[in-house]
Amino acid sequence: MAHSIGKFVPGLMMDSQLTVPTILQRAATVYPQTTIQSRCADLTVATHTNAHLYERVLRLMSALTQLGIRPGDTVASFAWNSHRHLELYYAVPSIGAVLHTVNIRLFPDQRRYVLEHGEARVVFADESLLAAVIEAVEGMANPPEVVVMPEGPTLTADVPCGAHNYEAILAASNADEQFPNISENSAASLCYTSGTTGEPKGVLYSHRSLYLHSLTCCMADSLGVRESETLMPVVPMFHANAWGLPYSAGMTGAALVFPGSHIAARPVADLIERCKVNCGAGVPTVWNLLFQHLLHHQHDISSLKRVICGGAAAPRALIELTEQQFGVEFLHAWGMTEISPVGSACVLKAADLHKPLEERITLKTRQGLPVNGVEMRIVDDAGSDLPTDGNHFGELVVRGPWVAKQYFKRSPEDPEFTSDGWFRTGDVASIDASGYMLITDRSKDMIKSRGEWIASIAMENALASHPSVLEAAVVARPDELRGEAPAAFVVLKQEAQPVRAIQLISHLRNSFERWQLPRSKDIHFVGALPRTSVGKIDKKVLRGQIKDAANTSQEQLASSD
Amino acid sequence: MAHSIGKFVPGLMMDSQLTVPTILQRAATVYPQTTIQSRCADLTVATHTNAHLYERVLRLMSALTQLGIRPGDTVASFAWNSHRHLELYYAVPSIGAVLHTVNIRLFPDQRRYVLEHGEARVVFADESLLAAVIEAVEGMANPPEVVVMPEGPTLTADVPCGAHNYEAILAASNADEQFPNISENSAASLCYTSGTTGEPKGVLYSHRSLYLHSLTCCMADSLGVRESETLMPVVPMFHANAWGLPYSAGMTGAALVFPGSHIAARPVADLIERCKVNCGAGVPTVWNLLFQHLLHHQHDISSLKRVICGGAAAPRALIELTEQQFGVEFLHAWGMTEISPVGSACVLKAADLHKPLEERITLKTRQGLPVNGVEMRIVDDAGSDLPTDGNHFGELVVRGPWVAKQYFKRSPEDPEFTSDGWFRTGDVASIDASGYMLITDRSKDMIKSRGEWIASIAMENALASHPSVLEAAVVARPDELRGEAPAAFVVLKQEAQPVRAIQLISHLRNSFERWQLPRSKDIHFVGALPRTSVGKIDKKVLRGQIKDAANTSQEQLASSD
Repeated sequence: MAHSIGKFVPGLMMDSQLTVPTILQRAATVYPQTTIQSRCADLTVATHTNAHLYERVLRLMSALTQLGIRPGDTVASFAWNSHRHLELYYAVPSIGAVLHTVNIRLFPDQRRYVLEHGEARVVFADESLLAAVIEAVEGMANPPEVVVMPEGPTLTADVPCGAHNYEAILAASNADEQFPNISENSAASLCYTSGTTGEPKGVLYSHRSLYLHSLTCCMADSLGVRESETLMPVVPMFHANAWGLPYSAGMTGAALVFPGSHIAARPVADLIERCKVNCGAGVPTVWNLLFQHLLHHQHDISSLKRVICGGAAAPRALIELTEQQFGVEFLHAWGMTEISPVGSACVLKAADLHKPLEERITLKTRQGLPVNGVEMRIVDDAGSDLPTDGNHFGELVVRGPWVAKQYFKRSPEDPEFTSDGWFRTGDVASIDASGYMLITDRSKDMIKSRGEWIASIAMENALASHPSVLEAAVVARPDELRGEAPAAFVVLKQEAQPVRAIQLISHLRNSFERWQLPRSKDIHFVGALPRTSVGKIDKKVLRGQIKDAANTSQEQLASSD
Repeated sequence: MAHSIGKFVPGLMMDSQLTVPTILQRAATVYPQTTIQSRCADLTVATHTNAHLYERVLRLMSALTQLGIRPGDTVASFAWNSHRHLELYYAVPSIGAVLHTVNIRLFPDQRRYVLEHGEARVVFADESLLAAVIEAVEGMANPPEVVVMPEGPTLTADVPCGAHNYEAILAASNADEQFPNISENSAASLCYTSGTTGEPKGVLYSHRSLYLHSLTCCMADSLGVRESETLMPVVPMFHANAWGLPYSAGMTGAALVFPGSHIAARPVADLIERCKVNCGAGVPTVWNLLFQHLLHHQHDISSLKRVICGGAAAPRALIELTEQQFGVEFLHAWGMTEISPVGSACVLKAADLHKPLEERITLKTRQGLPVNGVEMRIVDDAGSDLPTDGNHFGELVVRGPWVAKQYFKRSPEDPEFTSDGWFRTGDVASIDASGYMLITDRSKDMIKSRGEWIASIAMENALASHPSVLEAAVVARPDELRGEAPAAFVVLKQEAQPVRAIQLISHLRNSFERWQLPRSKDIHFVGALPRTSVGKIDKKVLRGQIKDAANTSQEQLASSD
């Protein structure tokens, strides 16, 4: 029998491209009545439908073209979560341009840096954020044009000379713009990492990566986005595609509720009640503040069935508070800007669903199983696989269709990318025999004491489980004897009983060895923790404070010499 | 300000390919303990895990290579649903070859035709189906090699001379086969349409189309395949990828239960009870026979939460029986071999969930909303869009990443494919304002009476709603006065009260105009309906019977002249 030479044969299926505009077209065709509710600056709520969205996106596409935007150009946004930001999410990629969502909490020099590095030709800025944008672009050699977006029906002030009014350019545009053909591998959006070390680095998402990522977030076993839920992304749209949820909502027809600039506990609680939100998505702090608020204030949040929590490890106390006191399902997820961002979700396996409550809560403190499409390994310093027994921990490396292969305008040989095609997350993790992944720490946050590692997250969670503690952060303090020692920064609950350092240390004895404990003088009671631009606890600042304090005492020592 | 010339910029995300072996790798890594239960010929159940599956697939990949199979070669299967068929589902595409799943119910000449047309080099046949395979390949110029698969632990007879024993070649292979790099656009499997008109036509699926289709079946809002469910595909694995469910199960870690050759009501009921099946998937006849059986026989099917039903329009009576009498959720889906096959699923929108029961059941008789990724339109004879108001009906055309663009070894200009990139389904459908699609008929099954259309499916459903009727088929009979008139073939329930034609016609008066009704002599009571190779009612045979009867009476008339 003659044999072929072994040539792959192409399939005979349609070459349909996985692009952002196809999501919009689906939303408008299959779910035209689905609502998009946006909190305005004055706390009123504006309601649109997917049918409105579609018409306004077509107008925005036309307006962008009139502003001179061409395929491959970058358009920046500087905005809260709103229906207008959603319009940009669809319109910019739909004409083949790239939406650069600028983190509004960046420092002024970083803002300027990312706008210049991203080569934005136009910046769309919320009216309340306009001053920051103008400051950032002033004096640039090639400053981008500025479009001002109202945070309600209309602007409250005149637009500055040379700038445009969002609603005016939409009104002047035409609504029968055509969708150009776009390859799914084209760039669609750009987001910079928070840049806690060095300059922010850009991740250039493709249509394909955004599509596949958002599709995966609709799987019953990942984030489970579905039509029957009203979804409130509190996670900012300027941060890692708001976890892909705006597009997932388009794919499934889920209703959206955007909080605008009102993301404190009280207005969020009010919005849940008012818009009958079923599912919220945000970082641990958002939910911690919300549920703490709800312990003392009356709101009808009976519509809220579940919260999706990511961006930082969720402490056990928060999971217990959410599930046991409020009966709201807590879905713990993990991701990074470089992973679009969702990499894992803690959907319990069937075999674990009937375990005792305590064990289930323990499992929910894990970051969970990799979502379909993402491969995960833990490796040692030499890059060799470590056992997945729940005891070994090492650096987490990932790969998949929505993982970055290099940073924008940087080398593919950057140390974050291995030569065999994996992304080094910088997170230290263990993976247990059932596949649940647990982030132990950021590798740079681990504390090496007497030659052994102490995981800062574990100590933070233990501190947060004390009834008087709202939140805690633990960092390494240089220590002559131990090498490094843990130093804790603790925020107490407003209504809490007073507590002393020695009591917290005693509380930590339940979970830590004696040699791992901080000393009394290493427990710092503070009113609030410093945050990075994406709302994570800024440990760099805390380490700086410790260093400053040490230097001061050194200086005092020196001057007392 | 200088503007770019408008060149699309490529994104900077990993080029991970969407291929079948990545599904297997996920199943083995994240869900190694998930079970695969297979009914053996002797009615015992064999249990494997994903970990076993992985090891056996590696061995099978090695064995295939030893049999001389190279990338691009075709390997045929001729088998029931079983763990060995699942091993072929993974192993053949994983070495870059193409798995041709041959419909075991094809007529002998069609079997031979598709094996030759598909250019199979090896055929894997279940032992009980071996005779049919040997008959099909006998005398071929280039006969494929034959591998015999046990339907239990071992074969019950010696393999014929020259054939191979599946378990023997696995045992002789090595388990450390490497996965070659495969482009997602490579062909992975091949399935022929049932060929009710003309020769069967082959659909050549790519890795990408299989992957995206199965991923979509895991969306909460489509088929919702999930880890917590034990899934029993009764739909044959030789028919349109068993709706992608074997791969969806791999992606999510859902447990699988395969019925083997035992697909009658009693063994299926027994299997549900024994393996605690949560979700079944099959054609309407499977569920109708199962629930009719359960009305009169005791089985504990309390584990069964839902059934997915497709392959033919589900009658209202079946939906009512399933949901109201058995409390099992009924999910109505629609698809075609050319669509991989899933095109739509009737997941009710949130706005419809609180409607009265009757209205919800009516909605569930619809084939539902297009699944994400599939675009649908209804068009008139000239190809122009018809209003989606629920009243207009026209030919359903679809497109998407898992829709065929041409048939295997045929022209892309075949009439099934429009010049602007849509697939003509041959189904006549309406789409209502909420987006729910309803198949009215196959275009060739519509009855044109007095210049107006009568939908055969509507009349079949009305007949099936009579308490004595098990199932019914309606076809056109040539009629001198009316052009065409409906003729009904009716199967009564075993325990039913006797019923006369006139009573059924009276029953039809509730839903049809007088001019649309069949005459008494056009109601044919039969013991069973003829089926096509994929289990659909074979209307071609029924039309032939009417024609024969007409000819006979013509001849009688002639001879009595």
